[in-house]
Amino acid sequence: MNILSKAKKNIETLRQKNPLVLNITNLVVTNITANALLAVGASPVMAFAKEEIEEMVSIAQAVVINIGTLTKDVVEAMFLAINKANKLGIPVIFDPVGAGATKYRNEISRKIMEEFKIDIIRGNASEIANIAGEKIKTKGVDSTEGIDNIVQLAKLAATKYGCTVCVSGKNDTVTNADETYLISNGDIALTKITGSGCISTAIIGAFAAVDKNFVSACVTGALIVGISGEKAAKTAKGLGSFQVNFFDNLSNLNEKYIEGAKIKQTD
Amino acid sequence: MNILSKAKKNIETLRQKNPLVLNITNLVVTNITANALLAVGASPVMAFAKEEIEEMVSIAQAVVINIGTLTKDVVEAMFLAINKANKLGIPVIFDPVGAGATKYRNEISRKIMEEFKIDIIRGNASEIANIAGEKIKTKGVDSTEGIDNIVQLAKLAATKYGCTVCVSGKNDTVTNADETYLISNGDIALTKITGSGCISTAIIGAFAAVDKNFVSACVTGALIVGISGEKAAKTAKGLGSFQVNFFDNLSNLNEKYIEGAKIKQTD
Amino acid sequence: MNILSKAKKNIETLRQKNPLVLNITNLVVTNITANALLAVGASPVMAFAKEEIEEMVSIAQAVVINIGTLTKDVVEAMFLAINKANKLGIPVIFDPVGAGATKYRNEISRKIMEEFKIDIIRGNASEIANIAGEKIKTKGVDSTEGIDNIVQLAKLAATKYGCTVCVSGKNDTVTNADETYLISNGDIALTKITGSGCISTAIIGAFAAVDKNFVSACVTGALIVGISGEKAAKTAKGLGSFQVNFFDNLSNLNEKYIEGAKIKQTD
Repeated sequence: MNILSKAKKNIETLRQKNPLVLNITNLVVTNITANALLAVGASPVMAFAKEEIEEMVSIAQAVVINIGTLTKDVVEAMFLAINKANKLGIPVIFDPVGAGATKYRNEISRKIMEEFKIDIIRGNASEIANIAGEKIKTKGVDSTEGIDNIVQLAKLAATKYGCTVCVSGKNDTVTNADETYLISNGDIALTKITGSGCISTAIIGAFAAVDKNFVSACVTGALIVGISGEKAAKTAKGLGSFQVNFFDNLSNLNEKYIEGAKIKQTD
Repeated sequence: MNILSKAKKNIETLRQKNPLVLNITNLVVTNITANALLAVGASPVMAFAKEEIEEMVSIAQAVVINIGTLTKDVVEAMFLAINKANKLGIPVIFDPVGAGATKYRNEISRKIMEEFKIDIIRGNASEIANIAGEKIKTKGVDSTEGIDNIVQLAKLAATKYGCTVCVSGKNDTVTNADETYLISNGDIALTKITGSGCISTAIIGAFAAVDKNFVSACVTGALIVGISGEKAAKTAKGLGSFQVNFFDNLSNLNEKYIEGAKIKQTD
Repeated sequence: MNILSKAKKNIETLRQKNPLVLNITNLVVTNITANALLAVGASPVMAFAKEEIEEMVSIAQAVVINIGTLTKDVVEAMFLAINKANKLGIPVIFDPVGAGATKYRNEISRKIMEEFKIDIIRGNASEIANIAGEKIKTKGVDSTEGIDNIVQLAKLAATKYGCTVCVSGKNDTVTNADETYLISNGDIALTKITGSGCISTAIIGAFAAVDKNFVSACVTGALIVGISGEKAAKTAKGLGSFQVNFFDNLSNLNEKYIEGAKIKQTD
């Protein structure tokens, strides 16, 4: 089955299976991440208490870890959650928000990558560069200066950790080092609302819950976010209505969206 | 006065008295709960620091407790807040989000019910079943499988704890064990945006601040949320615009909404 | 350059320089504050871990401190952040949400004002009165009863702490004790959505990052929020669409907005 047929099938399967996606995420995007997951047909649960996180993992079909607003207690819950997910064979999706901005984020994100099994990483180029050990200048949590060859970077990270990597940017790059796709759907407005990256990560998590081929899970998620953003921009009057349209589109998601895919395979 | 006349009067009284409703709630819904309370005419305050929570209770007219994203420190603040509210005779409304999903939530929600005076519980059927001690299968924080007789369940919980119970679902059931109402307003979209249940609980809290008859307070809150959801669905293009319409309707609330009530009394 | 020319220039400079604004803010408004900053052209970062906050300060061009949902750990992070910003000469903007409502908020807000250098305070009249040491009755976090002369109050606070003060209300008052402006843009709906004050503070922070004259930074921020709110109200169908329009307007911000300014200088 080609990648676009797989993406179409994933959309249908997600709505049928309605997987429970556990999110330990940042406090900026908690609400919109839950809404995005509900919109595409998954069941979100947001939890971060050490006392219950392992039990929550055990009823989930995917675990999404996002370090956007780290604190010591939440970090402990993340480690417990990932460890439990690894034991149970539940896919773990990691969003290293702001990796590169502070030593603390670097330390936590490297610990996550090195001591546990992470199935998918999604971030912008500077975050992935940091994970891969490449030196890149970072401006806060959003920047991506000085990155020459994002495909090479993504493959480096994928090889280093034996995982699938999705680098978001003007093009989204998805690779497991062997198989690589570039997606050019999306709209600049997605970079001007907070949390569109975090939402991508969570939606990729939802597809990883129903598709054990993590490359096609990532491609499906990246396409849906990009295409929903493109459609949203067409009638938006500004960033407020863009966000409303974006959620309308996520919730109206169907196989036809995939016909708007702008994708090419490079490996 | 019949229940619908009471609901109409409550809408007017809420806007006149503008009660302060203290919320110790979960991090997914903090923003939208505050906005929902403002929209219907209450004054929200969201706080959860042990250092100040008792003082906050002492200036509030209702206290809403929601365990959607528990942590140890917040649990301590909840216990202090409920204890203080009980001493001052301020109504306490409890939303046992995800009760049944983890031992920690079960333990905390049972402690809340058994060691304090709770005036109103609002939850879905699986949460209320857990509170009542009935065994029900739970899927994360959202599911309601295998519940035969919700009215019986609601009355069981109301009797066990001497409180008023509101069970949300396809029908909303409100009972204090003696007097029971079924409300069938609402729209499926309310189950596809995060926090509509939490908003119901908070709005019920606002009405409990101005109506000491907690059955009519619950009925008013459930009707308003259901009817605002129904109206919202009529012109929504998806879940994004549904949520916008829903808040528009909450803020345009007036007595005429009650004319759309679909309600029957069974006890 | 007069104040309106300065405001026009600030709008352009903000979009050119795209300053990083670090926010330690409350959990009710985290998402909308980040979106408001993005909309007007700043780069938001939201962080509050003691482990990384000083590093975050060192890459920021302004630091916004908001005590809307205090906890002990976040307070420690605030002290570290303000101290670091003071050492580096980065402007600090303080929003004393709910000062006056509890002893804890009073204690923290006075400590912030007395032990550190704060460049700008923005709050409602009862919050500023509390900071200034004037006795005012407070209702939760929103009220402003019994305040006779807001200009006098603002100048008192500005003199006491050697800072610029912005008092939000029916009129917004901006003063550094020597130079004083009254702004009467805005719409009642801004008081009925949660976080419009917090957004003002953050946007003022963004302008303080690019304009070392804090009076004109405050005036620019207050005008933009007021004018965007006014425009939003014109086509809003309720508070849901008001909020969407408000964000649309923030994101469409340009120099022409300033032509709608309702401002007078009193000192």
